[in-house]
Parts: sequence; structure tokens; C-alpha cells
Amino acid sequence: MTPLETLQKINTLAAFNRWCGITVTHAEAGSVTIEIDWRNEFGQYSGYLHAGLIGTLIDTACGYAAATMAGPNLLASSYMVNCLRPATGKRFIARAHVVKPGKSQFFTACDLYALNDDGEKLVANGQTLLTVLPAP
Amino acid sequence: MTPLETLQKINTLAAFNRWCGITVTHAEAGSVTIEIDWRNEFGQYSGYLHAGLIGTLIDTACGYAAATMAGPNLLASSYMVNCLRPATGKRFIARAHVVKPGKSQFFTACDLYALNDDGEKLVANGQTLLTVLPAP
Amino acid sequence: MTPLETLQKINTLAAFNRWCGITVTHAEAGSVTIEIDWRNEFGQYSGYLHAGLIGTLIDTACGYAAATMAGPNLLASSYMVNCLRPATGKRFIARAHVVKPGKSQFFTACDLYALNDDGEKLVANGQTLLTVLPAP
Amino acid sequence: MTPLETLQKINTLAAFNRWCGITVTHAEAGSVTIEIDWRNEFGQYSGYLHAGLIGTLIDTACGYAAATMAGPNLLASSYMVNCLRPATGKRFIARAHVVKPGKSQFFTACDLYALNDDGEKLVANGQTLLTVLPAP
Repeated sequence: MTPLETLQKINTLAAFNRWCGITVTHAEAGSVTIEIDWRNEFGQYSGYLHAGLIGTLIDTACGYAAATMAGPNLLASSYMVNCLRPATGKRFIARAHVVKPGKSQFFTACDLYALNDDGEKLVANGQTLLTVLPAP
Repeated sequence: MTPLETLQKINTLAAFNRWCGITVTHAEAGSVTIEIDWRNEFGQYSGYLHAGLIGTLIDTACGYAAATMAGPNLLASSYMVNCLRPATGKRFIARAHVVKPGKSQFFTACDLYALNDDGEKLVANGQTLLTVLPAP
Repeated sequence: MTPLETLQKINTLAAFNRWCGITVTHAEAGSVTIEIDWRNEFGQYSGYLHAGLIGTLIDTACGYAAATMAGPNLLASSYMVNCLRPATGKRFIARAHVVKPGKSQFFTACDLYALNDDGEKLVANGQTLLTVLPAP
Repeated sequence: MTPLETLQKINTLAAFNRWCGITVTHAEAGSVTIEIDWRNEFGQYSGYLHAGLIGTLIDTACGYAAATMAGPNLLASSYMVNCLRPATGKRFIARAHVVKPGKSQFFTACDLYALNDDGEKLVANGQTLLTVLPAP
């Protein structure tokens, strides 16, 4: 399987990812892209994409970027999210990459773009520190 | 309205909070508690509570804690999440408080507990930095 | 040696800690206190304690708190600092504790107080995620 | 004055920056470079650059990057540091840029490189969220 096929398969195993409608659209060693289409259920109280879903996309894309190098035995230790602009769009595209791989931990980062009729706009960024679990 | 009634009303305005089934169970000046019941749709690929939903609870509880002092005109600038233990439970309880209020920004923090038959366990913590918006 | 004596010894091994004049004033399993006296060389451009020194105290106190449980084979993976108030004082006191110990990583947190004639005031807080190194 | 000359002047006003020997070597709208030479007083207990000084460089470079666009009336609200590799080098170079400018806050990011005989290596990265102060 290609890295993209592997991640698409892993992505079907996470119930919340399925509910969100996350699709993996690009994957190579050290970097991935995931996307979702806007739905009304995603809104916070002003109707923007909820910050919790911004974090969901960032954490998920970062984890998948690490998985292209380390396999699936990873857990997020911590992640952080910067809400740069109100997140409104028809579609959201998270592009993550590995900043520093390691035997025991992976540093990753992600940019989140909102897609509208006038193109893409950066609405958030963030990072995730992942721990590599011992092989089972 | 009491702070609790005010937050319960605000909570109904956010579509994603409704989908998650978030309930506000306690609120006083500077601190709040929110809760959700586990549902299978909440799982990441190992069946634990998805880190994105951990962030949702932390970000939401922190925002509500700030709102008890600043009113609802607040936006999260950034938040961060520490995944301390695998988050498995029948119910999740997020307790947030204001660390430092201010005219233009609020520093807040939150602990997230999983409730099981043997009681509560701390599974995550985090913090949110909120910006106070100019009155409309 | 008591935990306090052990940390005081370790503290003498770090050249920058010596330059700062960091003293370890309290240590027990999972929590420590370190302190410095203000010096004019510590100022940022407004004369407050430089944010880099705020981070130095938080990172150092967090590392020592973890060391009371894990020994000295630890490295900080990441840390974060919230600058809650302008940090002005005659003396600064950092109190750190372990939030969650682990075999491979420690989550820790720290509050930083400024001491003036009218008592202590919380001026910053933060947290450090430390990785436990394999025994040499 | 050019942005570089302005920052070099501001840099002389911070006592701790002077002690560290920080020099501003590049500045244009939205990005800056600052540098220090290694000194033995900078070491943590293994002799690497102390994480507090890594934070000093990241926080300072981020603040200067924001100052190229907002002027000097800025205060760091929070910053975070990832220690990617042991920081050993003859010289350290911090390159920061503005991720998102704003009326009330600036999001910035920074990469820190260690310079040795075999070239530059990324040893840390981080970010700072700055608040724009009302004009005095």
C-alpha cells in the first residue's frame, strides 16, 4: 500500500474522523493533507468552525504526518492551536509535516486553510508532540 | 439570570456543542464545569476519546469560565492540550477557571476528568488564552 | 542525601543557573521551589524581568520537580510560558510540581511569584513536558 | 532609520539582551534574525545551551519581528519552545517571522539554528503571541 492508502485505511478506524467526514487527500513521507466539508453541525456560537474541530484537524493531520514515518503506534502527548482568523469556509484543508522525527517522539506542525469562492486563506495553525509507543 | 442559566443559554447557540451533548453543570464567577456522556462516535482509532474532543471540552470550558467575568464577547486566540492518560470513561467532566482576568485578554486553565465506576481520574489538562472583543 | 540536597548539588553543575543565582529552597517528591534575587542585568527593555528569564525559572523548576521522582536523566521536550503581569520584584519564587509522572515522560507545571514589600504576586505560569532518557 | 537600525537601537535598551550579547543581523517588514556567540556561562547541566536561553532567543526574535510592523509597544502574552535537538554550537541564529499581524495581537514563529564547523542545524523552534499595547 502507498502511504496514502495506508492512512485512508487507518482513517476509517476512528469513529470521530468518520463522523467529521475527514478525508486524506495527500500523503508522502513526512507530510499529509486532510480535508473536510463544512456542515452546520460544526459551528461554534457565532457560526464559525468550532475551535475544537480546528484542533481535531490539526491533531489528526499531525498524527498522520508522523505515521508516514513511524507507523501507527503513536499517541499525541500535547498539541496547541492558534486561531488566527475566524474560520469560515466551504471546505477546510489541513496540511501537516514532521518538523523533527525521533526514536521516542515526533515534533510536527500544521497549517489550516479555509477554502471559499475566492480561494484559500490561512485560518489557524498548530503543532503536536507525539510519543512513539513500544511495538506491541 | 444566574451565571449558570446564562451559560446554559449560550451553550444552546453553538451547533457543535449541541451535537456533543455538552451540558453546563456548574458556574460561578471565574469557574465552570461542563460534562458530556461517552458516545461511540467520539472515538479515535483505539476507541479512546478523540484528542480533538478533549480540546473541544477544554476550549469550551475555558471560554465559559472567562464569560462568567467578561460576558460572551470573547474569542479563543490559542489553546493547548496535554493528553495525560488514555481518555476512557462513561462520562467526561471539564473544570475550568480563570487564572488571570484582564481588559483585553483572559488566561484560563482546565482539568478534564473521566468518570468510571471506580470514580474520577484526571486524563487531560490544558489552557486557553482568550481575547476580549470590543463591545458591538 | 535529601531531595533538597540532591537538587542543590545538581544546581551547581549548570553554569547558567549559577550566573542567575538560582537557589533551590524546597524539594519533596513531586514538588520544588527555586528562587532568584533581582539584578539589573535581568531586565528587558522596560526594566521588567526578561521573558527569557521567566522561562528559565519555569523550565528549571519543572525539571527539578520531575527529577525528584525520575532522577536527573531528563530533558525538556517543550515548555510554554504565560506572562500574566509585568514581572517586577525584589525576588522571584518559582513553585513547580509534577502533574503526571510516567515511564517515558513527565508533565509538570509551575507558578512564578514576584516578591515585593507588599507580599507575593503571581506574575507568570507555565509548564514543561520532559522526556526520561534511557539510563546511561 | 531602517528597520535594522531601529531594532539595533531597541536591543541596546534591554539589559539582559546586552548581557547575552544578542546582535540583530537582519530585519525587514515581518522578519528578523538575531544571533549570539556561545559562552560557557550559557550552559545547562550537560553543557548544552540552557533551555531558558533558547526561549530568550525565540521570544526576543519573535518580539522584534512583530516590532517591524507594530512598533515597540508590544508585550509577549505567551510563548512556547520545542527543544528539538541538544543545542550545542559556536553560534546560535534565531530567525523569526510574523505569522499573522493584527490590531490587538501578533502571532509569530521562530526557528533556532546552531552553527558549527559543519554548518547550521535546526535545534529548536517556537512561537510567541504578542499583545499590542495602547499608544502611550
